[in-house]
Amino acid sequence: MNELELIARLTRSLPGNPSVVTGAGDDCAVLDCGRPGHYLLFKTDAVVEGVHFTSLATPEQIGHKALGRCLSDIAAMAGRPLAALITAALPADFVPAFVERIYAGINALAQRHGVAIAGGETVRNPERLLLCVSMVGEVARNKCVRRDGAKAGDALFVTGELGGSLSGKHLDFEPRLAEAQWLAENVPVHAMIDVSDGLAGDLRHLMRMSQVGAELLAQAIPISRAARLQGHAPSAAKPPLLAALSDGEDFELLFTVASREAVGLLDAWRKQFPKLRLTCIGRITAEGGLKLRDKTGLHSLETHGYDHFA
Amino acid sequence: MNELELIARLTRSLPGNPSVVTGAGDDCAVLDCGRPGHYLLFKTDAVVEGVHFTSLATPEQIGHKALGRCLSDIAAMAGRPLAALITAALPADFVPAFVERIYAGINALAQRHGVAIAGGETVRNPERLLLCVSMVGEVARNKCVRRDGAKAGDALFVTGELGGSLSGKHLDFEPRLAEAQWLAENVPVHAMIDVSDGLAGDLRHLMRMSQVGAELLAQAIPISRAARLQGHAPSAAKPPLLAALSDGEDFELLFTVASREAVGLLDAWRKQFPKLRLTCIGRITAEGGLKLRDKTGLHSLETHGYDHFA
Repeated sequence: MNELELIARLTRSLPGNPSVVTGAGDDCAVLDCGRPGHYLLFKTDAVVEGVHFTSLATPEQIGHKALGRCLSDIAAMAGRPLAALITAALPADFVPAFVERIYAGINALAQRHGVAIAGGETVRNPERLLLCVSMVGEVARNKCVRRDGAKAGDALFVTGELGGSLSGKHLDFEPRLAEAQWLAENVPVHAMIDVSDGLAGDLRHLMRMSQVGAELLAQAIPISRAARLQGHAPSAAKPPLLAALSDGEDFELLFTVASREAVGLLDAWRKQFPKLRLTCIGRITAEGGLKLRDKTGLHSLETHGYDHFA
Repeated sequence: MNELELIARLTRSLPGNPSVVTGAGDDCAVLDCGRPGHYLLFKTDAVVEGVHFTSLATPEQIGHKALGRCLSDIAAMAGRPLAALITAALPADFVPAFVERIYAGINALAQRHGVAIAGGETVRNPERLLLCVSMVGEVARNKCVRRDGAKAGDALFVTGELGGSLSGKHLDFEPRLAEAQWLAENVPVHAMIDVSDGLAGDLRHLMRMSQVGAELLAQAIPISRAARLQGHAPSAAKPPLLAALSDGEDFELLFTVASREAVGLLDAWRKQFPKLRLTCIGRITAEGGLKLRDKTGLHSLETHGYDHFA
């Protein structure tokens, strides 16, 4: 049983109540906590030693990654982060100064994005370090962007460049909060997700929730320098395009807008964020399934994203 | 370095923002999220295999305990729980049916208290099961009870009975949500905390936050049947009174009210909750330090609560 199958079984019959607007299945849970015109966003995410980082990561990077992943999920709903709690599960031989440096990484990123660290706890996890971050954020009701709003004909966009994140970016990415908030303010965004499981995997999540298909343009996909360098190494396991489709942990924004908005969006984006690439990589289709168009024609794409239990 | 020293170092300089009313150091973080007249409560808590439960616990009990601990913290602020997220960190050899039974335990308790399970995630933690629960709740601003409001002369109360929780109660306790909400509605409660680290330990937390001392009456402390039975066993490690003071995981409410409210409270409580004991166990003092009065006089009490790293 893979992660998605297990989660599907677990989420089949979760208890709800009237506060839940969107439960399991989007980047964040969306709650109505009684604030007029606003929703509360609620998210939890964990990183585990040996799974999400190795002993090569500095403690500051570990803290940065743990908090940054949650911030990226708040961004994917076009939200503003408010406060986070940190659960630090520490191995038997933990060094206090190392834990303090993890917090230095958390705190620096938190300060940059205006999110408070409002507490948490420490527990023992004898064999390895695990950090679990919980976060609440806010979003205006009419600006909240979910995964389920993509429509046939929409243009599909991605920020930044994809692939090869493991060579460094996964430890020092900047969550796209300002970009997502600007998008929600300035363009009718139909659906959005952050790229954490890989472009193909996250696009499939968006397609499933929106009940649509998608067609990617192979030549348009922005492949990162890291993925290109790795792809040209003699021991390369993956061609660069495949890395961009499936590596994961890019923490970029993947979203759709009506096709008539596409050109205006690209113009406005260039003025607003001249240093961050925005690329139209394909379109949403009424017919289900994920397809890739390259020089030789249109192919059904079987690549899936990262499976946490594979 | 013990847990409290590490936490003191980590919490010295956490980033804040205007949404934080109460950060690290109380049962829950208290946030102002813009809902008029209300605060948001925010809590995270983890249980770890071999630390908070053993292989003797059923999966339903593990789920119950994980969620119940957070609910008890919401109760300690007199709040109402809204929604929880579950991070299930699963060992390499996890059995899906076991995880589903954990969720059955979570869901049953959640339903009883009207809290939604709004999502979460699964990650790998190869050697052992770890469950991290995040919860948000709500409380009217003028009914939110913190740890820092105890005043010299206050009467000190505890619900239920204390000690010996490890023999069973820690896996099937009922969080005192209804009781705490009733208290906040009906009595001016000055300070409250849930008893998780042991009566002495949690009373010290309350004393430190309120900058007061306390005097406990040895004969008044409600000792559980489990603590008494263990205390009379030939191999007894702890006298029953010491067990009640220090065992922890009782998940009862410890709170203070002005002494003039004490008698009326006991009367009203008996009518409202005839099956749950409420006991006045001592008083708050202006002079610092924790003292125990028994037949032989007044003694300084050195017993501390459970230290997660001891």
